[in-house]
Order: sequence, then structure tokens, then C-alpha cells
Amino acid sequence: MNQNEQEKTNQAVGKQTIRFACPPAILSRASIVGDMEGQGPLASYFDQIEPDPAFGMDSWEEGESEMVRRAVQTAITKSGIAKENIRYIFGGDLLGQLIGSTFGLKDFQIPIFGLYGACSTCGEALSLAAMTVNAGYASHVIAVTSSHFGGAEKQFRFPLEYGNQRPLSATWTVTGSGAFVIGSKKDDDAPVSVRIKGVTTGKIVDYGVKDSFNMGACMAPAAADLIYQNLQDFDVKPTYYDRIITGDLGKIGRKILIDLLKDNGVDISRQHMDCGIEIFDNEEQDTHSGGSGCGCSAITLAGYILKQLREGSWKRVLFVPTGALLSTVSYNEGQNIPGIAHGVIIERE
Amino acid sequence: MNQNEQEKTNQAVGKQTIRFACPPAILSRASIVGDMEGQGPLASYFDQIEPDPAFGMDSWEEGESEMVRRAVQTAITKSGIAKENIRYIFGGDLLGQLIGSTFGLKDFQIPIFGLYGACSTCGEALSLAAMTVNAGYASHVIAVTSSHFGGAEKQFRFPLEYGNQRPLSATWTVTGSGAFVIGSKKDDDAPVSVRIKGVTTGKIVDYGVKDSFNMGACMAPAAADLIYQNLQDFDVKPTYYDRIITGDLGKIGRKILIDLLKDNGVDISRQHMDCGIEIFDNEEQDTHSGGSGCGCSAITLAGYILKQLREGSWKRVLFVPTGALLSTVSYNEGQNIPGIAHGVIIERE
Repeated sequence: MNQNEQEKTNQAVGKQTIRFACPPAILSRASIVGDMEGQGPLASYFDQIEPDPAFGMDSWEEGESEMVRRAVQTAITKSGIAKENIRYIFGGDLLGQLIGSTFGLKDFQIPIFGLYGACSTCGEALSLAAMTVNAGYASHVIAVTSSHFGGAEKQFRFPLEYGNQRPLSATWTVTGSGAFVIGSKKDDDAPVSVRIKGVTTGKIVDYGVKDSFNMGACMAPAAADLIYQNLQDFDVKPTYYDRIITGDLGKIGRKILIDLLKDNGVDISRQHMDCGIEIFDNEEQDTHSGGSGCGCSAITLAGYILKQLREGSWKRVLFVPTGALLSTVSYNEGQNIPGIAHGVIIERE
Repeated sequence: MNQNEQEKTNQAVGKQTIRFACPPAILSRASIVGDMEGQGPLASYFDQIEPDPAFGMDSWEEGESEMVRRAVQTAITKSGIAKENIRYIFGGDLLGQLIGSTFGLKDFQIPIFGLYGACSTCGEALSLAAMTVNAGYASHVIAVTSSHFGGAEKQFRFPLEYGNQRPLSATWTVTGSGAFVIGSKKDDDAPVSVRIKGVTTGKIVDYGVKDSFNMGACMAPAAADLIYQNLQDFDVKPTYYDRIITGDLGKIGRKILIDLLKDNGVDISRQHMDCGIEIFDNEEQDTHSGGSGCGCSAITLAGYILKQLREGSWKRVLFVPTGALLSTVSYNEGQNIPGIAHGVIIERE
């Protein structure tokens, strides 16, 4: 192994982390959201709020695809980069066989890697996008994820018309898509550059939880595992980050996460923030434990979090989208609901 | 940009291709298959043939997970590498929300990137695995995909008990899982090393086909697009390869592929081979147009193709798994079935 190779290999840190030698920049970001999200506390941070749940199309699923298309188009337009110079898209959603992404992305004619990590997919997409840019395989790529309340309820739970009761542990799937242009260059327009400094990739963690109306409990162990490992790999304390931001644990999942880490000697209670808790006014909007879905962390990052980093309120965050690995088939066959989480270290320069 | 970065960037070739500076080796391979595959012409090439469709478990889906687990465990054992030294798994399957992979892979406790590219997923997994190793992020990773006839029919078509008629254009989903250990080092045991020299990543291609019983027609345009682009990016003729091997086009898809490329001045009829045509004796086994599924190309690569490369019958192949991007929801809502294909250039040293 020559020195170049050695240097490259040394980007692998600890058990599960990569620290990038040439940290890719987040050059632009876009968030397209539904009506409910537009009535929430983060409304002012989004690019578009669409009142029609079908986004002008004939079904929720086609609506989700239209939302994805708009998110990617907006991110490209805001970046000022020609579509032809974007080499890959990394994307996924919650629907079986990724049809939300497929039909939303097909007309861009950009080579695509389809991803599935349940609601952790935004972290997976940003990780692989940044790994690809840092390695020099592409100058510009896109990471995008989405979810849709109606489509997700139909996919995973009951017909909306049935009007089933929702326990207080349940979360509300966010209707939204967040897209990001990741590149090797600085954003010329902006004096401040926000970069992906590294990634910590999650394992599947199964604590034996089986309640699909308590996703927070399913995912919290995976988030705890990921955050613990990230701190170990970098040999830092939680105060290294201004915020440690999980995707969609909600209020119940947050409590479990904090407790699990405390049991292991780590206190993140002062740094922790959860996109699912921030996205809705859970009392006013009757969303119970919080928001969830691939779109939840994506639009909170694209809208709120990156603004705090760009404007200097925060210097460094650990962004940890969390996913619950189930389908109606696995659930109905009595399987557990394991969790997964992917961590992305985002820093203001 | 310094020279190292320039050198790395130059690995990106043409529009959609990467030529690796340090081509990763395929260190070991494993194929676990079902009864039907074990009665086919490639039977002697597989590691395990399992007569029980549930692989000793309670359902087809749990059986698929067990098959995935066995494939990965066998590949690890054959590689002689400790599980702890395998940094990532790249894997996926056809089931909604990737439950085949989730439950098959969770106990390995290796960080995982979940992928979905329909039956092209084997190409996607090998591509991202090789990109990760070549970039120096990991010394050893695993790529794995699977499919299961019973689970796929239940997911996409009719209950098996219903005994629906299958048109001659239909393919038969392969029950099988192929796993590969990809690494930066030579295989110490083997005098001959087989390496992944480069990858060409596919776009979503939509020719407006809507017939889910004619997957070959849905996927052939994507395969044609990918193969044409690979030849363009490398500026080579089809004779550059000993074989150009598609995943599961079957007999009808093969004809469309050959014709589409001929229309564009490229004749691959002498190099072309399709895993779906090779895997079954389609006359004797009543599998109509051929085999299909994420497992089809994976077990044909793990069993048959890599043996030809290792033993010197072939020097270089372009391996092109092909996928049809549909779900029952998209199909029942009247959407087209777009295709995608991912190309992997595999060479004997």
C-alpha cells in the first residue's frame, strides 16, 4: 500500500465512521411540504407549502412523486449547476419498491442509486452522496428523500377513511421531500460553507419491540447505538456537537434514547433535538408523539437546521435520521421491528 | 485541486462510468438456491441447494432471510476473513421495505446500506461496494441480494394457491441469494484474482411498457441504454468483452435488447448472455421466458460466471443486472413500468 492509499484508508475512523479528507459541501437545499407541515412551527423555513394532498396529481403516490420532482428541481435551480453536471442521485422513500422516488426522479435522466433505510434513508443518502464526492467520483450529486402521510398510512396501517384511533405513542407521517445538492466546491454565492465532515453508518438493532404504533421505541435503541459509536469513534463528548439531532423518535423515543445513553454513561439531554418533535405543534396539531417519515428529517434539515448552521447559531451538528425496519408482511407474520440510524456530521466552516 | 484529487477525479470516465484506480477484488462468493434452481442446468455451480421452500422457517419471507443469512455466512467463511473485519454490507431484495435483507442480515451486526434497484440490485450493490473499497473507506465489504419465488409472487402477483395462468412472456422468480466479499487485497488462496475494474451506473428508462407479465420488455430499454453508454464511456466495441451478461431479460427481453442496440449501430448478439435464460431449462422446467429476480443474476454470477473468469475461459465481462421498477400500487394505479440497469466490469488478472 503506497502513501496515497494509506492516507485514504485513514479516513476510516474507529468501527463505523469515515472522516472525509475533502469534506463535501452542501451547495443547495430544497424542501417541499404539505398543508399540515405548513401549519406547523417550522412553516417559514420551507421552500413550498402545497395545500393539495395529491400535489395536483391523481393519487397520493403520484403526489409524492411530484413532490420529489419539485424538491430536486428546486435544489438544482438554487444551486445554479446545470442538470447535466450532476452525476448521481441517491434517493429513496417509504413506499414498497420506492415508487415515490422512481416516478419523481425518472425524467431527470441522472444515474440513480435507489436506497431504503426506512426513515433513516436521508442519512443513508447523504452518507453515500458525500462518500462519492469525497472519493472524487463526482463533482456534484443529489441526495433526496420523501414521505407522504396518505401514502404511508395506506402502505403501513389502515385506510384513512376507516378513521382508526391512534394511540398517544403514534407519530404522524410527514408529507414532505427534502433534496440536497452535494458538491466538491464551495458555494460561490454564500460566504459561509456548510460541509459534511464525516459519516457514521448504522447497524440493524433489534430490541424485540413489536408495536408499530410506537415507532419511537423501535428506533431509539438504534439511535443510541449510533450516537454512542460516533462519540467513541471520534473520541469526543456530546458537547463536541451544538446539537445531536435525531430524525423522528418523537417524545417517547426521545425519552428512551436519553435513558439508554445515560445507562451507558453518556448524557446528551442538553444537546439532543428531534425533528419529529420540532416539525409539528404536537398539542395543537393533534400529532401525538411527533412527526415521522423519510421526509421529516429531510425537510427539517433542508429548512431549519441548515439555516442555523449557515447563520452561525450552531457550528457543528450530528444529524441522525432513524428508521423502523418493518413491512406489513413482516409485521403481520409476527416479526419484531428492528431499528437503524445513520449519522452525518455537518459543520459550518 | 491538487494532483491527488485530480487523479482521483479522473476515475470518472464519460457520462456514467467509473474506472477504478485500485480495482477491488472479489475475494469470495456464495450461492444458496432453492429446489427449482437445483434442478436447472447450473446446479453443479451452487454452494447449497435447499429442498424446503421455507428454508426450515415458518414462511417464505423468513425463508428468504435465512437464505440471505446463509449466503453471507458462507461467503465470509470462504473468504477466511473475520466478521469483525468486514466494515459494511450493501444489500437488498424485492420485498416491500427490504424485509428479506433486514431479518437475514441483522444478526451480523455489520453497518449496512439498504439498497433497492429491483432486479438490478446486485449491480447496484457491487457498484457501491467496489466504490467504497476503491476509495479506501473499507478493506472488506459484502454485497448481497436475494429473491424468493413464493414471496415474490405473493408480493407482486397472485396467491400461489390461485394457480393463475402465466403467459409465455412471463418469467419465473429465482429462489436464491448470492453474496460476495469484496476487498482491497488479493485472495491469498487463489493464484488468479478477479477484480471489479469499473462500474457504469444506470438511469431510469421508461418506454411506456405497462405489462407486468412481460418484464423483459420493461427492462430491455434500460439494459440497451446502459450497455450503449458503457461502450461509449470506454470508447470500446462489444468485442472488448468476452461476454455482456444481462440479469433477467429472458428470451423476449433479449430479442428486444439486441434489436434496440442494432438500431443504434451496435451488435452484441455474439457476446450477449442472459442469466435468466441460463438459470433454468426453460422448456423442461416450464419457466417460459426465463428466470428473474434479484437472486437470478446474483447466483449466476456467484456460481457460474466467476468460475469461468477464475478458470480462464473468459478474461473480461460486462455484468448488467436489470430491474423493473414497479409495485402493485404503481401498477394498479395505471403507471408505466420503467426499467433500470447497473453495469459492473469484472476482469480476470
